[in-house]
Amino acid sequence: MVSAPLFMMEIEEAAARLKGHAVRTPLLRSDALDSHTGGRVFLKPECLQRTGSFKFRGAMNRLLALSPAERAAGVVAFSSGNHAQGVALAARLLGVPAAIVMPSDAPALKMARTRADGAEIILYDRLRGDRAAIAAELAEARGAVLVPSFDDRHIAAGQGTAGLEVAEDLAGLGVQADVALICAGGGGLAAGFAIGSGLKTVTVEPEGYDDVARSLAAGRIVPVIDPGPTRCDALQTLRMGDLTFATLQSVGARGVAVSERAVVRAMAFAFVELKLVLEPGGAAALAAALAGVADLKGRTAVIMLSGGNVDAATFAACLAEADQA
Amino acid sequence: MVSAPLFMMEIEEAAARLKGHAVRTPLLRSDALDSHTGGRVFLKPECLQRTGSFKFRGAMNRLLALSPAERAAGVVAFSSGNHAQGVALAARLLGVPAAIVMPSDAPALKMARTRADGAEIILYDRLRGDRAAIAAELAEARGAVLVPSFDDRHIAAGQGTAGLEVAEDLAGLGVQADVALICAGGGGLAAGFAIGSGLKTVTVEPEGYDDVARSLAAGRIVPVIDPGPTRCDALQTLRMGDLTFATLQSVGARGVAVSERAVVRAMAFAFVELKLVLEPGGAAALAAALAGVADLKGRTAVIMLSGGNVDAATFAACLAEADQA
Repeated sequence: MVSAPLFMMEIEEAAARLKGHAVRTPLLRSDALDSHTGGRVFLKPECLQRTGSFKFRGAMNRLLALSPAERAAGVVAFSSGNHAQGVALAARLLGVPAAIVMPSDAPALKMARTRADGAEIILYDRLRGDRAAIAAELAEARGAVLVPSFDDRHIAAGQGTAGLEVAEDLAGLGVQADVALICAGGGGLAAGFAIGSGLKTVTVEPEGYDDVARSLAAGRIVPVIDPGPTRCDALQTLRMGDLTFATLQSVGARGVAVSERAVVRAMAFAFVELKLVLEPGGAAALAAALAGVADLKGRTAVIMLSGGNVDAATFAACLAEADQA
Repeated sequence: MVSAPLFMMEIEEAAARLKGHAVRTPLLRSDALDSHTGGRVFLKPECLQRTGSFKFRGAMNRLLALSPAERAAGVVAFSSGNHAQGVALAARLLGVPAAIVMPSDAPALKMARTRADGAEIILYDRLRGDRAAIAAELAEARGAVLVPSFDDRHIAAGQGTAGLEVAEDLAGLGVQADVALICAGGGGLAAGFAIGSGLKTVTVEPEGYDDVARSLAAGRIVPVIDPGPTRCDALQTLRMGDLTFATLQSVGARGVAVSERAVVRAMAFAFVELKLVLEPGGAAALAAALAGVADLKGRTAVIMLSGGNVDAATFAACLAEADQA
């Protein structure tokens, strides 16, 4: 299905809608990061967003756009965790009933936080069930609105408000950036960010899950098949969406992939140097910069730190592993 | 020795001097924190400051005020780690030779980061040596300038710029805060913050190290003697300074103390809910709010998150302990 790319106007509308709801996250810098990369790097820490990831932006934008009848009927979403929390909080704030379909191996912290916001959680087996089908069936049965995690104009536009903020902050500093490194699952954040910021965008995915990179290189959507396990639970998408493909293709984006080792090292760097808690997927773009997969020498860059929802035990294990790596 | 309280003008001068050097850290909020405390809470995350703590502000302000001859002669400081890093980075940025006297049991991360900024490190035995005397002797021998960690007008004024920023940000939001919770070692940050922000200030110290609270209650400086060990290595001061006492007394500040258990629980809260890495001392003020030592119900409050320099192993141990607590 061919989709029109996302428009700047949709992101501006989302920004107006989200005002007072989403956190305007700051733009940070790090001496150590500049020195490691040889570039001038600005960080957008969406781990500081409500619910601990950028996903609240898109979810809240989607729910704010519901009609009163739709709000009363409720929403259904499927997500391994960050979109789940975004939808759950947005639903609680707006008094909308929410049911979330989550894989039974979703991180415990993400499940607990989604439940804490009052959402009903429906578990499925990642290896056997089709979460999209389960959610669609549920929405149909309940007359509820399905809130997809990336292939939806309101969702991608909401995520894009992070890019708009970066563009405004850079303009305020009188800085012209060369490139933005944005992690990608289904590409909603990357697509929204590319339009919202106007920056040349490089998507970053875990090795094996680089459907966005492959699709952009091939000029058509190319799903990945049966990749091995990855710590980046937030980036396990196998096939990007029509909207996100059309949008990223329209701006000439390209993609790179990072190793699991690069990801845990980036988490450790964020712990030691940035004092930020990043989940594996949230550290992917930083990993691309630190591992040199994206060469920032002499360049001015923006790096998205997309989320920080990670269990304490997993976090400790990642830091310990980074120390050995 | 009687000292005049710190003046607002000194903080404004420091702010002008630090512009472009220190990070203007953002003001953050947290739904979970508001809900836990029953108040409206704003967080000042100085863990996001250069070197990972507020100490860079005071150190840089002090070094920027050195004469060319003093810069050439170099500086000497004593510190368990955060002031050490602040002085080391400021010295490197300004091309000033720096020697830092550190206790041999200082956290490994703090020592490594101080060394990485090119400072010479001189170790002493915390239980037997007198670091102030060692540093003073060294400064004398080298003709270098001694840079104390709190009882110095430039240092306290530099730390106070964090308070000035908070006042500006709150005014921008149209918010009037009732109280600020600020951790205290020797009280430099608390004194500077109280003047810079104009807010009613409550100092927070680890139990046993509450010399600031006792001094403010007694109306004269009361040192503590032989307290047990604390995880809050940054707050192990036994006696506050004349300047910090005079300043905090002049504004009617009072102090509270928090348990070790409250501190590790606050670190865990920051990890899960704020996605910020806090060292034990950096979590003390948050601990006072979460443990109810400072009652924020129905109040608008500012909480200082003063630093995040903690080793990975210590951090993991604290999170694990908080889970049991």
